[in-house]
Amino acid sequence: MPIEIPDVVIDRLPIYARALTALERSGRDVVSSQELGAQLGVTPAQIRKDLSYFGRFGKQGRGYNVKRLLEELHQILGLDRTWRMVVVGVGQLGHAVLSYGGFAPQGFNIIEAFDADPAVVGTTIADLVIKPVSEMRATLTGQHIDIGIVAVPAASAQQVIDGLVESGVKAILNYAPIAPFVPKHVHVKDIDPVLSLQSMTFYLKGDQPSNGQVGPSTQQP
Amino acid sequence: MPIEIPDVVIDRLPIYARALTALERSGRDVVSSQELGAQLGVTPAQIRKDLSYFGRFGKQGRGYNVKRLLEELHQILGLDRTWRMVVVGVGQLGHAVLSYGGFAPQGFNIIEAFDADPAVVGTTIADLVIKPVSEMRATLTGQHIDIGIVAVPAASAQQVIDGLVESGVKAILNYAPIAPFVPKHVHVKDIDPVLSLQSMTFYLKGDQPSNGQVGPSTQQP
Repeated sequence: MPIEIPDVVIDRLPIYARALTALERSGRDVVSSQELGAQLGVTPAQIRKDLSYFGRFGKQGRGYNVKRLLEELHQILGLDRTWRMVVVGVGQLGHAVLSYGGFAPQGFNIIEAFDADPAVVGTTIADLVIKPVSEMRATLTGQHIDIGIVAVPAASAQQVIDGLVESGVKAILNYAPIAPFVPKHVHVKDIDPVLSLQSMTFYLKGDQPSNGQVGPSTQQP
Repeated sequence: MPIEIPDVVIDRLPIYARALTALERSGRDVVSSQELGAQLGVTPAQIRKDLSYFGRFGKQGRGYNVKRLLEELHQILGLDRTWRMVVVGVGQLGHAVLSYGGFAPQGFNIIEAFDADPAVVGTTIADLVIKPVSEMRATLTGQHIDIGIVAVPAASAQQVIDGLVESGVKAILNYAPIAPFVPKHVHVKDIDPVLSLQSMTFYLKGDQPSNGQVGPSTQQP
């Protein structure tokens, strides 16, 4: 595969996989890029282009075989196996992450959880005993952990992420409101609601009649 | 401004604004696209291209005036005002959202919160009395609300989002694991940790020596 695949394409594939899973469950065998696009708010051309990076899936005018495309996407994305995760930071957000029922059915298993607060350490959440973050490195030594979920305050996030990387973690799901430094081989996805809000207000600011500004041209489509 | 600005460019602007805020606080007057890029893991060319959509900011070889660029970004993104939000769904995640101290300092104020659970309705979280979701429409009538934060289970998310849209909300921050249908004038950002994980495993799947697969060419950045 000599072509470099843009990250934004990779980001859309799980969305396609989710929609195909729903179609498969409802007993559908074939779906067109038109229908898939309409369901997801993406143009059919975009879907065809995204999938074309990985080979030829649909037959002209016949749509995609739902089951086959889903299997291919699972293989492409590595969703046909399980992944081992740790959670660092068990405040309200970390607690919600540990309790969330949506990870394990998708193959994302939380193996360990750590916190700095002595009042939290030793408690059990979702069958996991919370361990002290000071023992994180020692606990993870010799364990293969794929992904670290970081739900600590901003001030301690970089240090926690450094520790995870040194423990061999190759991917970080970062809830802390910082842009962490990581080595090139480590992948980071930041989940930051403020950044999401701040990019939506760009589109909103023209909507308020009171401000008298003309909205940007991108408000159409 | 006749050029359509890609959403991915808009998504990066808040990240630039955050980095510039930190620079301003540390007393810096000028920053180069090289330094900003190195801080954020973005190429200098990308930063210059992103900013070029909005006019000319830096002087060749002299870098950006931190204070001026920050002011411009605030105006472009609508961060120079406050925004009124409601939260629907006060489970563990909604509770974390209500308690999160990071929204208000950025001008994002939570005005009302709703839940369907009688055990939660009437309780007070972060100075807000939780109201019944059945009264959401009536409560929001006549109030100007900019943004709805949806933290309800997948099964009730579309209905809640429909209600918010009918109440005049123009932007949705959606934590529910669905791709909601909204009218064209409504903006949605989905926060879904599973989708974020699933797009990282694409890059991880070549890392495990046990699976014998060759990693995708995009692993080299």
